[in-house]
Amino acid sequence: MPIASPSFRRTAVAGLLAVAALAAHAQAPAPAAPARPRTTADILRDAPASVWRRPDPNDVLAMTLPAGIVWIELAPRFAPRHAANIRTLVAQHYFDGLAVIRVQDNFVAQWGDRAANDDDAAHVRSLGAAEPKLQPEFSIPDAGLKINRLKDRDVWAPVTGFVDGFPVAADPKTHRAWIAHCYGTIGAGRGDAVDSANGAELYAVIGQSPRGLDLNITPVARVLQGMELLSSLPRGGQNMGFYDKPEQDVRILKIERLADMPEPTRPDIRVLRTDVPQWNEIIELRRNRKDDWYVHKAGAIDLCNITVPVRIEAKASN
Amino acid sequence: MPIASPSFRRTAVAGLLAVAALAAHAQAPAPAAPARPRTTADILRDAPASVWRRPDPNDVLAMTLPAGIVWIELAPRFAPRHAANIRTLVAQHYFDGLAVIRVQDNFVAQWGDRAANDDDAAHVRSLGAAEPKLQPEFSIPDAGLKINRLKDRDVWAPVTGFVDGFPVAADPKTHRAWIAHCYGTIGAGRGDAVDSANGAELYAVIGQSPRGLDLNITPVARVLQGMELLSSLPRGGQNMGFYDKPEQDVRILKIERLADMPEPTRPDIRVLRTDVPQWNEIIELRRNRKDDWYVHKAGAIDLCNITVPVRIEAKASN
Repeated sequence: MPIASPSFRRTAVAGLLAVAALAAHAQAPAPAAPARPRTTADILRDAPASVWRRPDPNDVLAMTLPAGIVWIELAPRFAPRHAANIRTLVAQHYFDGLAVIRVQDNFVAQWGDRAANDDDAAHVRSLGAAEPKLQPEFSIPDAGLKINRLKDRDVWAPVTGFVDGFPVAADPKTHRAWIAHCYGTIGAGRGDAVDSANGAELYAVIGQSPRGLDLNITPVARVLQGMELLSSLPRGGQNMGFYDKPEQDVRILKIERLADMPEPTRPDIRVLRTDVPQWNEIIELRRNRKDDWYVHKAGAIDLCNITVPVRIEAKASN
Repeated sequence: MPIASPSFRRTAVAGLLAVAALAAHAQAPAPAAPARPRTTADILRDAPASVWRRPDPNDVLAMTLPAGIVWIELAPRFAPRHAANIRTLVAQHYFDGLAVIRVQDNFVAQWGDRAANDDDAAHVRSLGAAEPKLQPEFSIPDAGLKINRLKDRDVWAPVTGFVDGFPVAADPKTHRAWIAHCYGTIGAGRGDAVDSANGAELYAVIGQSPRGLDLNITPVARVLQGMELLSSLPRGGQNMGFYDKPEQDVRILKIERLADMPEPTRPDIRVLRTDVPQWNEIIELRRNRKDDWYVHKAGAIDLCNITVPVRIEAKASN
């Protein structure tokens, strides 16, 4: 759960954490302890187990890179065709041995088949039973969609908020809703034709939210944990951040579904529900910071400045 | 000049670039060439030399990391005390041999003296003639400040725009203006006291713009080139992204002023003026993308989604 830290001094924060730890472990109210503003950690500690949801294991993917696992949750509600195709590709082990082939600074990290990207037909990996082209899923009807709306302004859309942990924008005039291109949003790369994506080439946003992509491409998922494994990769030297040489590609050891991992070793994954009061309380803490470091309270928050808490616990036998 | 690429296929863009190159080199209008929307590259190619400014060499810093140079422009107009102190520190070679000690994903990369951060008094490097504490420069009066205003909404401030290449926000009610915390903005880290910064500890924004920091800390500069050298660094494992061990710190070989480099080898640095029509034209191209890949025109742009073009040319003898 990466949350922007208020201080720029390690020591100052260490002191604050010591006070917090003291308060948390006290058997009785400690009258001498200084008053301390409620934090996100406090909210989560005090919340009942019911505020956490376990994502459908069919929708959770583990992408293993040399440096670790990027945990991903598919968004079948927003992109059912793409999610189904990606599940088919994963079941076929399509991604295993492919690579991150493009990292463009302040924009995206992109993975897939270098040969397909180069139109090198002789070396393109077969899509097997997956569809080669999909109708775009840039947005969905907003009918029946319960968006936990932010009251804040947005530069790009009349309505923003959260649905099942995904940052969502909507337009009541067109009755459409879509996943916003925030940090960690994953989309299906396409060429010039709107129906040229198939989910075999994916990108994750690694910089300032490129919301100009919204409604132009299909968001299919978001990163639950492990963003730093993508965002810290070397940037590519070619136009658009493609790596100059295949040797620079960052190998994907495998992408597998949580549902396909043996249950005894399957990590326990929980994502904070975004339709609970605790989530609203966390958002309000970000809008108006309670700790004294902040001498100015912004009174506002951007859709893409808040990250939904995720807990991933490995099983003991894992 | 990192600009988000419209396509997610290298081949599609390569084709487009070929057409562009053809058009650019044609001796006469090529009637057979397909109509091609005007791009930022076209605008810059056609612009007179006067649209470029050469930053004051006293305000340009070259931070040499093992992987290359991060070029920085100080903002004495917004933070005169901090800029002066940083110049004093640089003149004393204060930063040479210090390190990037913190990289927090989707937030900041921070550099300075690990010992000062740890309150390890015995090993703290002397600030020499520099001030140990500075009055905050979180904002300046907006009187006389010519902001080239964006017409777009902003989540955080009533007015946004550009001053001398810096992304700026302002509030006509308070008559204050400040550099916004966008990707590439550099600020002076501080502890709990507002006057605890001195410019010896600096951070650069490497993720989604943390605009909640605005008016809480002093922005002092921005990165002109080389952001990817900071943004792609390994993230730190400690709280707030500090590196666990000093061995993980990323050494700063030196920080020097452009003014102190021998003139014959000094690179030629030009930054696009942000008070010229060409800059407005570039912004408009980002608001409403002209190329066919975009089936939806956003009609808006965020202050932090636009990067001011910079040209850095090494001298032949360099």
